[in-house]
Amino acid sequence: MAVGESVWPEMHAIDGITIGVTAAGIKYDNRHDVCVFAMEEGTAVAGVFTQNAFSAAPVHICKEHLSKTQGYVRGLVINSGNANACTGEEGHEAALESCRSLSGLLRVDAAEVLPFSTGVIGEPLPVRKITRALPGLLFDSADSAWLAAAKAIMTTDTRPKGASCVVRCGDAEIKVTGIAKGSGMIKPNMATMLGFVATDATVDPELLQRLSLLAANRSFNRITIDGDTSTNDSCVVMATGRSAAPAITDENSPYYTELLNALVEVHQSLAQQIVLDGEGATKFVTLDIQGGGSAQECLDVAYAIGHSPLVKTAIFAADPNWGRIVAAIGYASVEQLDASLVRVWLDDVLIVENGGRATSYQEEAGQAVFDRESFTIKVDLGRGQASEILWFSDLSHEYIRINAEYRS
Amino acid sequence: MAVGESVWPEMHAIDGITIGVTAAGIKYDNRHDVCVFAMEEGTAVAGVFTQNAFSAAPVHICKEHLSKTQGYVRGLVINSGNANACTGEEGHEAALESCRSLSGLLRVDAAEVLPFSTGVIGEPLPVRKITRALPGLLFDSADSAWLAAAKAIMTTDTRPKGASCVVRCGDAEIKVTGIAKGSGMIKPNMATMLGFVATDATVDPELLQRLSLLAANRSFNRITIDGDTSTNDSCVVMATGRSAAPAITDENSPYYTELLNALVEVHQSLAQQIVLDGEGATKFVTLDIQGGGSAQECLDVAYAIGHSPLVKTAIFAADPNWGRIVAAIGYASVEQLDASLVRVWLDDVLIVENGGRATSYQEEAGQAVFDRESFTIKVDLGRGQASEILWFSDLSHEYIRINAEYRS
Repeated sequence: MAVGESVWPEMHAIDGITIGVTAAGIKYDNRHDVCVFAMEEGTAVAGVFTQNAFSAAPVHICKEHLSKTQGYVRGLVINSGNANACTGEEGHEAALESCRSLSGLLRVDAAEVLPFSTGVIGEPLPVRKITRALPGLLFDSADSAWLAAAKAIMTTDTRPKGASCVVRCGDAEIKVTGIAKGSGMIKPNMATMLGFVATDATVDPELLQRLSLLAANRSFNRITIDGDTSTNDSCVVMATGRSAAPAITDENSPYYTELLNALVEVHQSLAQQIVLDGEGATKFVTLDIQGGGSAQECLDVAYAIGHSPLVKTAIFAADPNWGRIVAAIGYASVEQLDASLVRVWLDDVLIVENGGRATSYQEEAGQAVFDRESFTIKVDLGRGQASEILWFSDLSHEYIRINAEYRS
Repeated sequence: MAVGESVWPEMHAIDGITIGVTAAGIKYDNRHDVCVFAMEEGTAVAGVFTQNAFSAAPVHICKEHLSKTQGYVRGLVINSGNANACTGEEGHEAALESCRSLSGLLRVDAAEVLPFSTGVIGEPLPVRKITRALPGLLFDSADSAWLAAAKAIMTTDTRPKGASCVVRCGDAEIKVTGIAKGSGMIKPNMATMLGFVATDATVDPELLQRLSLLAANRSFNRITIDGDTSTNDSCVVMATGRSAAPAITDENSPYYTELLNALVEVHQSLAQQIVLDGEGATKFVTLDIQGGGSAQECLDVAYAIGHSPLVKTAIFAADPNWGRIVAAIGYASVEQLDASLVRVWLDDVLIVENGGRATSYQEEAGQAVFDRESFTIKVDLGRGQASEILWFSDLSHEYIRINAEYRS
């Protein structure tokens, strides 16, 4: 199940990047489950990773290798079907082995390869299946390779997820293209969410790291499906420097803002596609929290609503039971919240003011909004100027079915 | 749906308390939906209430009246079927009206009556139905009246909930008897949870307030079904002073510990009955978090596990997918958690140590535990001496059905 129709976008190939996919038979039969990115020399790489204390072996190694190479990386090796998480020393060794194997193929140093895994937690990674499959990779730099990659990294996803854009920089242009996967265990910080975004812009690793974090905080770090933060969440950004546009060296460089906006656009599109494809999702809801005393209290309210099983089942049932929204706002731990100042809208329908149902509110108007496939819940806390946006999905029978049956 | 068999316990009548029930037709047809407690003069009353910023009108009035009367209260008026929450000024007036109506009947002051409501949020309370029904009350002080009361306060509950015990105090004895309701929107702090516990012990309101909080923090404040804290949660304790046992004036009085233990026993039994009757619950799980650096970090880990939809669906499916438990521990925001020191048991089966699956672990052993109707997940964080217990339920298709259909 997923919300709305999916249209695969035009994907702009990124000069300096080739992609290969293959079927290693890790968990699924007859499908690609290993994906490799090969980057030309000089490609800067940065990323954001899960903050889960049980973060998986590949996450540890990504951080180590990024540090060792000072952010200049030549390859990514990604598998679906097994998360290589909670696998101890053996899992660490398996992830290193996959790096070594790809580094031999690409004739680079093993530390110049980053590993990524997604799938079931706690089972040994059958790394020999990966290393045996790598020589069979067919590399391709065409836009079609991005679709193959997006499919190879899927687990419970029902759709490949991709986004791409081009920005003009004087006579030159910069392209940004990315793919992502994820549909459950999703409250990134980071979600089992993997994201791979590439650009041909010229950016050094340090600035790229700042851009990566800014983009993640306006995209992957602002979505929730089930509130579970995975052990493997990773999103990396690669900058090949092949564009004719001038190098972007700091926040004051020409075209810095254009690049940031392009990265945010691609990240946001990928993040929203994850919510649209959330496990069992039938609705896509935007939370627009305004009037907060701080960004944190806006997020506290947003997550209280976005994680409430009662709100999520009401949305699934298309029942505008706004009392559940108000109850969630009320328990969001905003200190000294004055309930009488809080206002709540469903799209443009005011439903709550003065501590109760808005006098103008008609149930039919709320029902009309809840009948939509996607809508916005706007909350004004009446305390200040801060605001935050969060995207989330509903909680359906299908979510239970998927997660009760996964693994079996 | 509910876990296990329900056996209605022997309920010891409390001298000084009579109970009446009636059918006011607030939401349900042909069932009791109003319940009244009448207490003899001199009865001390204390309570704990929801901390939801949108707490309902009756919660506000309870606090006001307890303060006005310095904790000496003569009546409780309780309705099910409507929460009288988020109902603004009109709702406040309706709750006061129900107090006035009962106070006339009991010939006491309106401030000596506490109101309680549970049911749907945001709809006007049809208070005239209550005031019209009150004169028809049949009062009864027998133990059987407690069962009638436990039934009258039910909403989505499938079982009445009661607990009772007697402690010997030298030649005399003290009785503690209570009822509760609640099965969804349950993460008390307090949950839509109402609890009414009475004792014939002699205790002043101030000490009773401390005892009430201690008992709540070891019972109602240690359970979760869906993580939603309601607008109406309330638990009051009444002490009629009719026992022949000596008055208990402070923490050093003879029999203080006996009374505390009896109150905790009754509170815990009621809290556990709420989890057993959780909406759609098929499993009852005890979380035993040990080795924490502080009680708060034990609770953070407990709630991360107890609220994880992925853990809850795995429990529903009887799938010992322990990776989800470990992932939840990992995102519980315990600072600098050393994953390699964490150990996890399912009942007495060690499943996680040294950052991964325990070498001794066999999947069949974990499966055997998950096949049980109730079991314990024990976590040792390996950081210190603090520990906490939390009780929770699974997440099933039935939960979605109940909450998608409620109201309709």
